[in-house]
Amino acid sequence: MKKIYFFIVSFVFLFFGCSENSEKKNIENDPLPSWNDVQSKQQIIDFVNSSIDTSSPNFIPISERIATFDNDGTIWSEQPVYFQLFFVFDEIKELAPEHPEWKTQEPFSFALENDLEGLASSGMHGLMTLLMATHANITSEEFKQTVLEWAKGAKHPTLQRSFTDLVYQPMLELLSYLQENDFKTYIVSGGGVDFMRPLVSEIYNIPPEQIIGSTIKTRYSYNEGSPTIDRIPEIMFIDDKEGKPENIQRIIGRKPVIAVGNSDGDLAMLQWTASNKNFLNIYVRHTDAEREWAYDRDSHVGQLDKGLDQAAAEGWTIIDIEKDWKVIYPFELNN
Amino acid sequence: MKKIYFFIVSFVFLFFGCSENSEKKNIENDPLPSWNDVQSKQQIIDFVNSSIDTSSPNFIPISERIATFDNDGTIWSEQPVYFQLFFVFDEIKELAPEHPEWKTQEPFSFALENDLEGLASSGMHGLMTLLMATHANITSEEFKQTVLEWAKGAKHPTLQRSFTDLVYQPMLELLSYLQENDFKTYIVSGGGVDFMRPLVSEIYNIPPEQIIGSTIKTRYSYNEGSPTIDRIPEIMFIDDKEGKPENIQRIIGRKPVIAVGNSDGDLAMLQWTASNKNFLNIYVRHTDAEREWAYDRDSHVGQLDKGLDQAAAEGWTIIDIEKDWKVIYPFELNN
Repeated sequence: MKKIYFFIVSFVFLFFGCSENSEKKNIENDPLPSWNDVQSKQQIIDFVNSSIDTSSPNFIPISERIATFDNDGTIWSEQPVYFQLFFVFDEIKELAPEHPEWKTQEPFSFALENDLEGLASSGMHGLMTLLMATHANITSEEFKQTVLEWAKGAKHPTLQRSFTDLVYQPMLELLSYLQENDFKTYIVSGGGVDFMRPLVSEIYNIPPEQIIGSTIKTRYSYNEGSPTIDRIPEIMFIDDKEGKPENIQRIIGRKPVIAVGNSDGDLAMLQWTASNKNFLNIYVRHTDAEREWAYDRDSHVGQLDKGLDQAAAEGWTIIDIEKDWKVIYPFELNN
Repeated sequence: MKKIYFFIVSFVFLFFGCSENSEKKNIENDPLPSWNDVQSKQQIIDFVNSSIDTSSPNFIPISERIATFDNDGTIWSEQPVYFQLFFVFDEIKELAPEHPEWKTQEPFSFALENDLEGLASSGMHGLMTLLMATHANITSEEFKQTVLEWAKGAKHPTLQRSFTDLVYQPMLELLSYLQENDFKTYIVSGGGVDFMRPLVSEIYNIPPEQIIGSTIKTRYSYNEGSPTIDRIPEIMFIDDKEGKPENIQRIIGRKPVIAVGNSDGDLAMLQWTASNKNFLNIYVRHTDAEREWAYDRDSHVGQLDKGLDQAAAEGWTIIDIEKDWKVIYPFELNN
């Protein structure tokens, strides 16, 4: 009787007292429940399983488990244009009365006229020009508060949802699955780092220092004891294309073993990752015109052309959103 | 009887089953054994104890426990000049036959003549000029290997020790103490980030991505499937003075709660940290001419003048090396 009692109590403590601290997490359930049973899902699970298996030739020490994710079009939607642009639009409209010349001056005029297509055609450079005009001459702390305030009320123009609702449920599951298996997950995005950090850090369970993005110059001022970091209207670094592996080396100092993107802007990051002996490269393909958007080789936003060719040629994992994902957004789970 | 049995088994599991994972680590032994029982040590321990005590008004959530350390003169020695310069000297001498003009051109001539004082007088800018000449036009991977190879054989000119032996044992204990209490420890140094990472990451138990330093520009090249990050001879960012809080905001995205430095180059970082309600600022004072070096207000290397005044005025913690530390270097422990 005592023995039985001992075992019962032991089990209670083993499973309830200590389970959340056990080093190796047993994924007893499906780690990616919003994914259909498709090749991409199996490739991800196979890679993770071999990475954490000390007896596998493909075992990866925890210190080397670096996974880098693009953001726009990879973890959240990016249509009809990058979400950061909707934030820019609102700021431009607020400042427009002081700048009458903006009415006829691109790319400012695009913002004032809600001309998304025109703005998309001005590319990352157009985006950065508007960022300089609207996001500088303000302290880092003020900018953070501005972004948070905006996010409270802003809605996507066609989906009528908060922008932070438009993250991909299957990618949240992938981030969580990798984190549980001791991968250090990073965002490496063309978007502004100070725009992303307040919005997505909590949702992705990724701390600010693991969010890398485009930056503007800043200036520290002591202000007699109330120091500020002031944002200067000059681009410091655009974290896109070749800038992604350059920033990864500069900031992380290690080559990722997993890279996930959706556009040609991510190709250099995936190429860099593919120069490992053992790696997992993933491209998200936007194939679902009904539940999300369908676009690739000819899109102004998130163009995927060269990357698609290289992914096919080298056998990188491709997520076909229409076929691979049961749901797109978290709110669909409640339907 | 059953109840007693339940309690005994409960205690066994509570204390042995889970103790290594318990959130609060009990430091049963002295966490800083190489420190004398001085004010600086007590201030550090008091700060950590209140930071991890959930019932304290000064409790700091784990996610906010960011501690930033200068490197040269703070965690390892920096005399007669920054250690990185000895690496530069060796590289300059190797390249000198191809550059006869260097014989009369400062700062190159300083390096060729082992004129440490001359080079120190050229300051961080002189250092950066030599870095450009010796550390660019090479890939990031080649540079890392060059640094590691050099470190194997190089010796400090007067102490005749490997440079990586010249770290401060009391600071290794402080890093370890903070890490055990869930502080995320960062290096934020004027030194080159790619020089520091291969040398100190393991010794400090700090991963490469938590080492921040000065950077040069780089260029990603695909090279038909063998991609490289090539180092371009142009300064990207000097992580010194005001650059330190700017880089902390840009890369970490959060204000540190602990900052540790030894020179006026660290003052902006300490000021930034002091704008928290609850913080610990530490200045290391080089007061020990016998066991290390003694220098402050008039030194070419590691000048501490304005910082000393502000530390005194605001009651920041000051480590007096001569009085506060039982030993300086780890090898003294074996004597």
